[in-house]
Amino acid sequence: MTITDRLVRQLDFIAEIDRLKSVERRISIIGGTRLENSAEHSWHLAMMASLLIEYAGEGVDLLRAKQMVLVHDIVEIDAGDTFAFDDRAREDQAARERVAAERLFGVLPPDQAVEFRALWDEFEAFATPTARFAVALDRFQARLLNRGNGGGTWHMHGVARDRVLSRMEPIREVVPQLWPFVLRTLDEVGLAGDAR
Amino acid sequence: MTITDRLVRQLDFIAEIDRLKSVERRISIIGGTRLENSAEHSWHLAMMASLLIEYAGEGVDLLRAKQMVLVHDIVEIDAGDTFAFDDRAREDQAARERVAAERLFGVLPPDQAVEFRALWDEFEAFATPTARFAVALDRFQARLLNRGNGGGTWHMHGVARDRVLSRMEPIREVVPQLWPFVLRTLDEVGLAGDAR
Repeated sequence: MTITDRLVRQLDFIAEIDRLKSVERRISIIGGTRLENSAEHSWHLAMMASLLIEYAGEGVDLLRAKQMVLVHDIVEIDAGDTFAFDDRAREDQAARERVAAERLFGVLPPDQAVEFRALWDEFEAFATPTARFAVALDRFQARLLNRGNGGGTWHMHGVARDRVLSRMEPIREVVPQLWPFVLRTLDEVGLAGDAR
Repeated sequence: MTITDRLVRQLDFIAEIDRLKSVERRISIIGGTRLENSAEHSWHLAMMASLLIEYAGEGVDLLRAKQMVLVHDIVEIDAGDTFAFDDRAREDQAARERVAAERLFGVLPPDQAVEFRALWDEFEAFATPTARFAVALDRFQARLLNRGNGGGTWHMHGVARDRVLSRMEPIREVVPQLWPFVLRTLDEVGLAGDAR
């Protein structure tokens, strides 16, 4: 069996992405014992995609949605996790992540580099039905963990209710069945303000 | 928007499986700083499925393979991770995991409980082309981490080369293109014995 350069590059990438397990997010797993990392977060989203696909609108492709959530945080290996409510860090986030995408997906054979880069670009652009579904799941998962931790990150960083609602807006737009859970959670954890 | 019992059960399950992030395996992430958990392990396998699908034989369904690896360890939330080379723990592993599967998948609405249980059963039975591919990836991922840690678990627990080879056998059978990497790794980390 000949070892091809193609396979070597694929295995190099598989080893490289192991580092996503060491990228910490600003949010804790339920129970609050430690911060969540971006690899296990991505697993959780991929499970959610299967479990909630019946609420996705027309034009959502489940396999592509799963690929997208599995890949969407890989740039953080180089660029780090950027906290959703840190305006300063978010200023140069796009630039940092583009450089990271070039290097990381560049480890792959060219056709797969293009394929995976396209998945990441599509998620970021929030334009296709599949990407919009994937992003809504990503936002809802943050609500799940913060609910499990009595408000978690929102309280810790003093994030106001209207900022949380604005961040969660893709859920209302894309998977409206989940929206009542968002509102209820904000009430339960005592984030002040009127429900919309 | 009415909140249905169905959606409540789905969200209960999504919260329940967060616990997979706290199930430690007996193997460390590359760099050896800590043990890998079963959620991030499952993410890694799902990425590998996309990346290596071109080496899968006929009859392998990529979406199903991904679903299977994402789900295959969920029973460990109740049953714990069973070390591959611990013969004693493996004696009652199947029984412990069946009880866990009943309870955990039972949180879901009945149709999804059946769907996810079937994925787990299929993985465990190692009979369909898709399950055989998924299992081969699972075995190869252990080789990846142990290689990244100079032999890792194999040395730590004094596992002999022939036992490792026997554990890795699904790789040789199902994705033979990966087999030279297994043999080379065993040589590199100094696991004694003749190569097959």
